[in-house]
Amino acid sequence: LLKRRYIQNTIQGVFELFGFEPLETPAMENIETLTGKYGDEGDKLLFRILNNGAIYEGALKTENNNQLIQAVSEKALRYDLTIPFARFVAMNRGTLTFPFKRYQIQPVWRADRPQKGRFREFYQCDADVIGTTSLLAEVELIRIYAEVFEKLTIPVQIAINNRKILAGLAEWAEVSDRLTEMTILLDKLDKVAWEKLKEEFVKIQFSEDQISKIEKFLSIAGSNEAVLDELALLFDNCAIGKLGMEELRTILEKFEAIYGSNASIKIDFKLARGLNYYTGLIVEVKATTVVMGSIGGGGRYDDLTGIFGFPGMSGVGISFGLDRIYDVLEELNLFPNQSSNNTRVLFLNFGPSEELAAMKLMSTLRKESISSEIYPSAEKIKKQLEYANKKQIPFVVLLGEAELTKEQVILKNMQSGEQTPCNFDNLLKQINLQLSNLNK
Amino acid sequence: LLKRRYIQNTIQGVFELFGFEPLETPAMENIETLTGKYGDEGDKLLFRILNNGAIYEGALKTENNNQLIQAVSEKALRYDLTIPFARFVAMNRGTLTFPFKRYQIQPVWRADRPQKGRFREFYQCDADVIGTTSLLAEVELIRIYAEVFEKLTIPVQIAINNRKILAGLAEWAEVSDRLTEMTILLDKLDKVAWEKLKEEFVKIQFSEDQISKIEKFLSIAGSNEAVLDELALLFDNCAIGKLGMEELRTILEKFEAIYGSNASIKIDFKLARGLNYYTGLIVEVKATTVVMGSIGGGGRYDDLTGIFGFPGMSGVGISFGLDRIYDVLEELNLFPNQSSNNTRVLFLNFGPSEELAAMKLMSTLRKESISSEIYPSAEKIKKQLEYANKKQIPFVVLLGEAELTKEQVILKNMQSGEQTPCNFDNLLKQINLQLSNLNK
Repeated sequence: LLKRRYIQNTIQGVFELFGFEPLETPAMENIETLTGKYGDEGDKLLFRILNNGAIYEGALKTENNNQLIQAVSEKALRYDLTIPFARFVAMNRGTLTFPFKRYQIQPVWRADRPQKGRFREFYQCDADVIGTTSLLAEVELIRIYAEVFEKLTIPVQIAINNRKILAGLAEWAEVSDRLTEMTILLDKLDKVAWEKLKEEFVKIQFSEDQISKIEKFLSIAGSNEAVLDELALLFDNCAIGKLGMEELRTILEKFEAIYGSNASIKIDFKLARGLNYYTGLIVEVKATTVVMGSIGGGGRYDDLTGIFGFPGMSGVGISFGLDRIYDVLEELNLFPNQSSNNTRVLFLNFGPSEELAAMKLMSTLRKESISSEIYPSAEKIKKQLEYANKKQIPFVVLLGEAELTKEQVILKNMQSGEQTPCNFDNLLKQINLQLSNLNK
Repeated sequence: LLKRRYIQNTIQGVFELFGFEPLETPAMENIETLTGKYGDEGDKLLFRILNNGAIYEGALKTENNNQLIQAVSEKALRYDLTIPFARFVAMNRGTLTFPFKRYQIQPVWRADRPQKGRFREFYQCDADVIGTTSLLAEVELIRIYAEVFEKLTIPVQIAINNRKILAGLAEWAEVSDRLTEMTILLDKLDKVAWEKLKEEFVKIQFSEDQISKIEKFLSIAGSNEAVLDELALLFDNCAIGKLGMEELRTILEKFEAIYGSNASIKIDFKLARGLNYYTGLIVEVKATTVVMGSIGGGGRYDDLTGIFGFPGMSGVGISFGLDRIYDVLEELNLFPNQSSNNTRVLFLNFGPSEELAAMKLMSTLRKESISSEIYPSAEKIKKQLEYANKKQIPFVVLLGEAELTKEQVILKNMQSGEQTPCNFDNLLKQINLQLSNLNK
C-alpha cells in the first residue's frame, strides 16, 4: 500500500503542478449511465447493486435472467473513471468553468475472474481537459507523462498517432465504412504478428488490394520526420489524413520548442487503441527497459458528453496504469528505500518509570516530524527487538534503569547493529544525523 | 474535495507520526462477514451486490423477499471500517506483527435515505491498536486526538469514561443482567433529558431503587479528581467498578506526566457509547465552541476478532467524524486560505509565438513547484481573466506582442489588481515574493 501511494502521490503532484483539480465521483452510478458504454462484454462485468427493500413482487413478474436483473437492480459500481466523468461534466455544465481540467484517482470494479495482474477492484488514475480543441492540451498531457516517469525514474517511450490518420488510411484503402472494424484489428498488432492479422482481415472480407494498402501503411518506419514525409506521399489527396498528420507535427514542434527536445516521443502508425470514442491524438507509454504492456494511454475525443445530452465538447485525456507501473518499479528495483514503513524509531519499554521518560523523549522527536513508537508493554527485550525487525524500523532507543539515572539512552542502528550512547538532550540531533546517513 | 483532503491529510500525518500503518480493504465483503454485526437496522442498510451470471433459476425457487435476496447476492459493500478490519486481522493473524497498529481512511456505504449530513457514501477514518492490553495504547490514541485537533485549530474537550465503571454501576444498582439495555438508554442522555429518560427506565421495569441509584451515579460532577473520589465511595465493594476507575486514573496520570497537562480530558460518567463491543475506556471528542454532536469517538474492546475465529485479542481504537469536522471548520471559518484551488499562476494566451514563450516561462515556474496553467487558446482577454477569477487563481501573467519583444511580462495580482512589469529572468523571484506576501 505504501508503495502504491508513492506512485499515486507522484502522479497527483504533477497533475496539481499542471493546474488540474481533483474530482471524486460516487462509487455507484445509475445502471443506464453505465450500460452500453463498454460493449456487451463490459455490461456483463458490471457489479450491480441490489435494490433495497421489497424486490420479491417485482422479481416474480420476470421471465428470464435479464428481466430479473433489471427488475431488482437500478445501480452499479463504476467500471472506469471516464464515463462517470462525462456524466459529471454533463450534469454540472452550468456551474463548471471551461476548459475544465480535472484529475481523478479512485478505485473501479469489474466482475472479472481474479487472476494475476487482474483484480476485481483496482485504482484508475486519469487526467482530462474538456472544452477546448487547442493542441496545447495535448502538449501539456504528453508533458505530464514525461515528468511523471522522470520523477519515477522509469525510462519510457511515448508513442503517438492520430485517429484522423487511421481514418485517412481507411479512406485511402477504400474501407471508410469499416473504420471501426479495422481499428479493432489493428489494435491487436501489439500481440499478434501482421502475418496472422492479415488472415483475420481476409476472414472479414477485406480485398487483397485493401489489405496490401494497409500493409504498405504499416510498413512506414523511421524518424518522426521521415514517417510523416513518407505518409504525405500516400495521403496526397486525403484531407482527413493530412489533418491528422498536421496535428502530430504541430504537437511535436511545440513540444520541442518549449522543452528543447521531443526525443522521447515517437510516431507509431500502428498505434490504434481500442476505444471507439477517440477522434484525434492517441498516445501510449511504454517502459523501454522492461517487457510489459503499455503503462499509460489516452487520446482526444470530440463528443464524450454527447451521450449525456451535452454534445460538441471536445476533450483530451490520459490515464496511468498503476498496477503495471508498480510492476515496472518492482522489476527495475526503483522504489525508494523509505516506502516500506513509516516508523523511524522504536522506543523499547523497560517498565513504568522508564516508559514515562521514553514517552517524553518520543514526544520531542514527533514534534520534529520523526515518526516514532514505543512498545506498549515491558515484554522481553528479544520480543521487542523482533517487533522492530519485522516492521523494519531502522532505529531503536534503549532507556533502561541504568540509562534513566544517567539521563542517557542507547541508540541502536538496526541495520549496522551499532550502538551509540547519548544524552537525552542529544538524542534528536544524533537521530537526525544517523537518519541522513541512512538516506544516502 | 480539497477541503476534505486537508482534514484527511492532517489526520493521516498524525497517524503516521505515531507509527500507524495504512490499511485498505476491498469495498466488497462476503455477506456473512457483515450481517448480524450492526443490528437488524444495519442489515437493512447494507448495499448488496447482485451475483454475476445466471441468477434466474435460483431466484425462481425462493418464497419471499429474504430468501430471494439471499439467493441472488453473496457480497455487500462495507458498512464501516471496524468489521473489515477485524476480518482482516483474523485472516492474516499468521503474518501480522502484533501489536498491530493500523489506520484506515476509506469510504463506507449505507442505504440510508439521503438527508442533510447523511450520505449514502461517506469516508470513515479509524486508527486501532490490537494485540496489547497496555493502557499506553489509550494514552497514545487520546494524544492523537489532541494533536489532530490542535493542528486543525479546533478547541475540543475529550470526554472519557470506562465500560467497567458502567458495569460497576449495573452491579451496584443490581441490574447486572441488564447492562446492555441500561447502556443503550444512557447513550441517549446526549439528546434526552434525564427526567424523560427516567420514564423509559420505568417502562422497561427498572425498580425505583435501581433508578435512584443510576440517578445518584449520574449526578456525580466536578473535577476529574473529585468525581473519582466520590465514585470510590459508591464502589467500595465493587471490583469491576474499581478496576475501571483505576484505568481512568492511570491514563490521566500518564498523560499528565508525559505531556505536562491533561486539562483537555474530562471524565464524564454519563458517556456510554452505543456499540456493544466496548469493554474498557470509552472516549468521545466535542468541539467546545460549536453546538454539534461528537466529532470523534472510540474505546477498548476485548474480543472484536472472536467473531471471526480469533478470540482473546484486546484492542483499542478511535475514529474521526470527518463530515462533522468539516462542518466545524466551516462554521468557525478555520479552513486555511489555500485549500480552494491549486493553481497559483495563469498565463494568458496571446497567440502562437507569445504562447511558446509563455510555456517556456511556465516550465521554469513548475520546476520550482509553482502550480501553473496557460489558457489553451488565444480567446478574448476578458474571457481568459474570467477563467482566472472563477478558479480563484491569484496571479495572472500577461505576455503579449509588445512584452515579447522586450522579453518582459506583466504580473497581475488578481486580488489587488496591481500590475508589475518584470523581465523574464525576474518573474520567478517576483512571483515568489508576491506569493509569500499573499500567505501572510
